[in-house]
Amino acid sequence: MNMIWKEKTLTTNSPVQFLDITAMVQAEVSSSKVKEGICYLFVPHTTAGITINENADPDVIRDLTGILERLVPKNGGYRHREGNSDAHMKASLIGSSCAIPVVDGCLDHGTWQGIYFCEFDGPRKRRIKIGVMGEKE
Amino acid sequence: MNMIWKEKTLTTNSPVQFLDITAMVQAEVSSSKVKEGICYLFVPHTTAGITINENADPDVIRDLTGILERLVPKNGGYRHREGNSDAHMKASLIGSSCAIPVVDGCLDHGTWQGIYFCEFDGPRKRRIKIGVMGEKE
Amino acid sequence: MNMIWKEKTLTTNSPVQFLDITAMVQAEVSSSKVKEGICYLFVPHTTAGITINENADPDVIRDLTGILERLVPKNGGYRHREGNSDAHMKASLIGSSCAIPVVDGCLDHGTWQGIYFCEFDGPRKRRIKIGVMGEKE
Repeated sequence: MNMIWKEKTLTTNSPVQFLDITAMVQAEVSSSKVKEGICYLFVPHTTAGITINENADPDVIRDLTGILERLVPKNGGYRHREGNSDAHMKASLIGSSCAIPVVDGCLDHGTWQGIYFCEFDGPRKRRIKIGVMGEKE
Repeated sequence: MNMIWKEKTLTTNSPVQFLDITAMVQAEVSSSKVKEGICYLFVPHTTAGITINENADPDVIRDLTGILERLVPKNGGYRHREGNSDAHMKASLIGSSCAIPVVDGCLDHGTWQGIYFCEFDGPRKRRIKIGVMGEKE
Repeated sequence: MNMIWKEKTLTTNSPVQFLDITAMVQAEVSSSKVKEGICYLFVPHTTAGITINENADPDVIRDLTGILERLVPKNGGYRHREGNSDAHMKASLIGSSCAIPVVDGCLDHGTWQGIYFCEFDGPRKRRIKIGVMGEKE
């Protein structure tokens, strides 16, 4: 068994943005040479998260960000002076890590699933940690 | 260390349904012969999720699905034309993966915890990926 | 590769409380002697969870618990007779497990991130399972 962590940088260009990072994550899985195992993703930020959802119709992502804004409005009379408590809450609701099966050297997610880095307080330069664990061929 | 992924199929029979899959997951852990390690669950769908919650009083699950419907109503004026944006949002709030300790060949969860496959856009035929990693005896 | 689970006890002293357990988790990582790998956290309770969020300004945590109470009020006309359905829902929204990279023997989270045990139905005596997997030096 083998385990290695890499870090990649991302640039977001609006306050709230879901970036499809599926191809970038698959490239890391491929370069790891792991055939059977698991891929971990970890976001080292407190106002961003990671989720897996539909990658076909972009309206799904628009609906998701709209619903999250309705549930946790940007301006909600919060105490934290930086004014981004909504982004902290969205990060904890969506979560800051996930794990995806690796089979035959590929991310083994569903047909309609994409991996999204979720920016909730952008635009910013961000990082993501990608860990691949498993058996090489 | 050892890592193997299996896929199981599930059938849901209503639009929203939490299926207790604890016994099915334990059966996979047992057949893996892993004694100490971890069990991963991954849902390859964008309108279903997985969570761990109470398995004693079925009213808890009824309350959970009721609260989720109040937070993210089925009909909310969404853009996605398939009309199931609520199910996509619920999937991302609940999450599509989890990991449970394996100790002495058994899932080492709490006394009152059950593992639930969460259907948000059924009824459908669904899949779940179960990965067991660890040391065999 | 190596994998070991430990259990620690925690005591919460109010109904809703986010306990910063980062130092406790790092101590387990250090005693495991794992240099490169991953640390898993699992909460074996159905009315508590775990999340990662800001550890600098305590107002962030106050805002998070306030927003969660607004989204899922303690008294919401629920069916479950124990009267803590809100706590069950909060646990499933926040999640009961997470995984953090271990690099050079240390939890490799972000500068502003702390690991929080989230009590939603306290005060109580609670447990948390900590698993460290990876290569020793």
